[in-house]
Amino acid sequence: MGEILVSKFGGSSLADADQIRKVLEIVKSDPRRRFVVVSAPGKSERYSTKITDELIALKQNQSNQNAQAAHARVIRSRFADITRDLGSTFTLGDDLHFLGRPAECSEDMIKSRGEYLMGKLFAAVSGFTFVDPATFIKFDWNGNLDMSACKEARDRLLDLKEGCVIPGFYGAMPNGDIKTFSRGGSDLTGSIVAAIVGANLYENWTDVSGFYTADPRLVSNAKSIISMTYEEAGELAYQGASVLHPEATLPVEEACIAIQVRNTNRPDDVGTLIVPEDRLGDRDDCPVVGIAARQDFMAIRVKKALMNAEVGFIHRVTGVLARHKINIEHMPGGMRTIDCVVERGQVNGKAGQIIGEIGRDCGPVEVIIQPDLALICVVGQRMMNKPGLLARVSGAVAAAGVSVRMVDQGLEENDIVLGVKTEDCVKAMRAIHDEFFGP
Amino acid sequence: MGEILVSKFGGSSLADADQIRKVLEIVKSDPRRRFVVVSAPGKSERYSTKITDELIALKQNQSNQNAQAAHARVIRSRFADITRDLGSTFTLGDDLHFLGRPAECSEDMIKSRGEYLMGKLFAAVSGFTFVDPATFIKFDWNGNLDMSACKEARDRLLDLKEGCVIPGFYGAMPNGDIKTFSRGGSDLTGSIVAAIVGANLYENWTDVSGFYTADPRLVSNAKSIISMTYEEAGELAYQGASVLHPEATLPVEEACIAIQVRNTNRPDDVGTLIVPEDRLGDRDDCPVVGIAARQDFMAIRVKKALMNAEVGFIHRVTGVLARHKINIEHMPGGMRTIDCVVERGQVNGKAGQIIGEIGRDCGPVEVIIQPDLALICVVGQRMMNKPGLLARVSGAVAAAGVSVRMVDQGLEENDIVLGVKTEDCVKAMRAIHDEFFGP
Repeated sequence: MGEILVSKFGGSSLADADQIRKVLEIVKSDPRRRFVVVSAPGKSERYSTKITDELIALKQNQSNQNAQAAHARVIRSRFADITRDLGSTFTLGDDLHFLGRPAECSEDMIKSRGEYLMGKLFAAVSGFTFVDPATFIKFDWNGNLDMSACKEARDRLLDLKEGCVIPGFYGAMPNGDIKTFSRGGSDLTGSIVAAIVGANLYENWTDVSGFYTADPRLVSNAKSIISMTYEEAGELAYQGASVLHPEATLPVEEACIAIQVRNTNRPDDVGTLIVPEDRLGDRDDCPVVGIAARQDFMAIRVKKALMNAEVGFIHRVTGVLARHKINIEHMPGGMRTIDCVVERGQVNGKAGQIIGEIGRDCGPVEVIIQPDLALICVVGQRMMNKPGLLARVSGAVAAAGVSVRMVDQGLEENDIVLGVKTEDCVKAMRAIHDEFFGP
Repeated sequence: MGEILVSKFGGSSLADADQIRKVLEIVKSDPRRRFVVVSAPGKSERYSTKITDELIALKQNQSNQNAQAAHARVIRSRFADITRDLGSTFTLGDDLHFLGRPAECSEDMIKSRGEYLMGKLFAAVSGFTFVDPATFIKFDWNGNLDMSACKEARDRLLDLKEGCVIPGFYGAMPNGDIKTFSRGGSDLTGSIVAAIVGANLYENWTDVSGFYTADPRLVSNAKSIISMTYEEAGELAYQGASVLHPEATLPVEEACIAIQVRNTNRPDDVGTLIVPEDRLGDRDDCPVVGIAARQDFMAIRVKKALMNAEVGFIHRVTGVLARHKINIEHMPGGMRTIDCVVERGQVNGKAGQIIGEIGRDCGPVEVIIQPDLALICVVGQRMMNKPGLLARVSGAVAAAGVSVRMVDQGLEENDIVLGVKTEDCVKAMRAIHDEFFGP
């Protein structure tokens, strides 16, 4: 049996007929591209909305006949446009019936239809076989991906004679109900398919030429990253590099399958190769792989004299946040203070209640909200025992006149996270980038 | 009514007759010294053990007649020696009966007798009135200091015509049972007495001339600190400066009473004045107040892919440690790892059980013990918005060739904590000290 590539194409690669022609050319240019995973059509010069956003709006407006009809029209005409522009006579037919009755379908079902319809359309214009991921990407009753159940599809997928196209973003619960991943989850579908079929490579085609040393929209001299490890890629993705879904590295990592992030619009660019550490080969001796940033964080600061000496104090604070389903990203603290650094969106509107509950559960404390925090993450090549990395990072930020409001570096961790004011974020990123990658 | 000083003397200031003569001279030289708080006799050139350690050993050996008798002899002869050397005919009499029946007394009762007996002896040789703190330093049923109950003694203490001497280190539960503070708690007794009587100053007499910019035994060019805030002193004390009990600042802080740390052996030295921030006056512009360090920490490292995205994960980890009554000092973490930095002594022998319980409560995780960590704390003058402090600290450590294994700086926190290997601790402290205080 020959080599197999699993090729996932993102929403902007499938946004209109011109883009889809590029995808068809890429897919047809190499017979090893037997498994194609498609996202829902995204934005392009011609279309200002993403199909998935239209679908979510359709569901949200299910009791508003006019709004619902408007969103249905946008979705219907988008697919009709694309099919016509591709010179195809294919029609989606019954597959569009849900547009008229969103109230009868679950939210996940509706959200998943962008990928589903794109898969049907792509199958029609490519001649590939359509395979519905609801038939093999399985979740357990807790909503966790059940990888061993997924792997039962291995023979069925490998037995397909022609190439096949698989919609991304969703799978099914044990009872068959559709369940979607979080946004960007088609990256995860591709990774799962690659792991199931034991692909030689997982190609992730998007609209940028791979990962960069920093977001090139903010740091103009950012360079593309030729190769890095799964852990580094996952960390950069999690910390704000929007190239890949942060969980997408996990299924292929377990199977030791490399990921190549490539640009549909510039297929000759080398992109970024993500590999196990022992296949990295030589890299330059720059201790930093890349820098990412996330905004819209806040700190819930809890002050109490000698809290550190109080067994279980931190546990009581974390209990309040867990009850409100808030993730704690970082928890720097001293003798009188801990700061729970969390996403602002998760606290949204509940700050008063949370302050009250911390006061109730943790005794006489002072709770202060620090509303503005941006997190900059410097992801390094195995930073352990590299004296001076923290000094270079903090020195660069200081020279730029930026105050470090928080810093978190764990033992042998691969990253240093700095908290700064939002207004200082880009300035600090540029300073750190210049320090490690030259001005 | 005139000014009042509360003067607490530490164990080395009361270790033998020569030391006690110095104390008597200090006390008698200023009639404002109306409240004297005494520790138990500590070590001196002549005596190699602390009375409190002898008392603890007495209790521990209560079922070993010979060992018990040996410790009782040491205690009895120590007080007899001191009384005789002071030329006094005073005898402790019935107050020593407990030495023959330690099994009948609670551990806290026995531990508290060093201060109690020292108080009796000091009253005899000074002519001061003996006041037992069990009559006014009150704990609630949870074992927490009940400051409002303590304050009921205000008039009684102020009505005393002569000076009085109060044993440190203990108070009483609501039923009258003796309860001790943690070791070094006589500092706290002095602070409580100062707060009760509304003293003009709380003098804390010890065997060093106040706080230093670093431990002068490790950093030879350390300088004494002339003045600082309660918070800075509490932080330095907590982080390893053994000058003062870390909680000793709290009662006087609430009452805005200054603490002066002075040296019984060098009463002309100015010592360190600890005051509310608005009474600090001008200080030099060095951003750092002092550096302290603690050894014998370890990290319990928990690894799990994407743990950050799992609501309540940190809460489950902290729950295991709270059950084992382990304080978490720091908790740096990233996307795949959190490190719970804890005192090694608290984990002692329970590491295997803790690893098992984390695995049970937190799902499939990897738990690794990092056994060796020393924590260096750089305590600053209101560090907020001081760009470059972290850079200077980490730059100095890097230049000394030391790897920073962990760093924790909270929002607007007064301190930066670095974790280093124990073998690097002194080298790093010296490097940081040279950076801020000159070589």
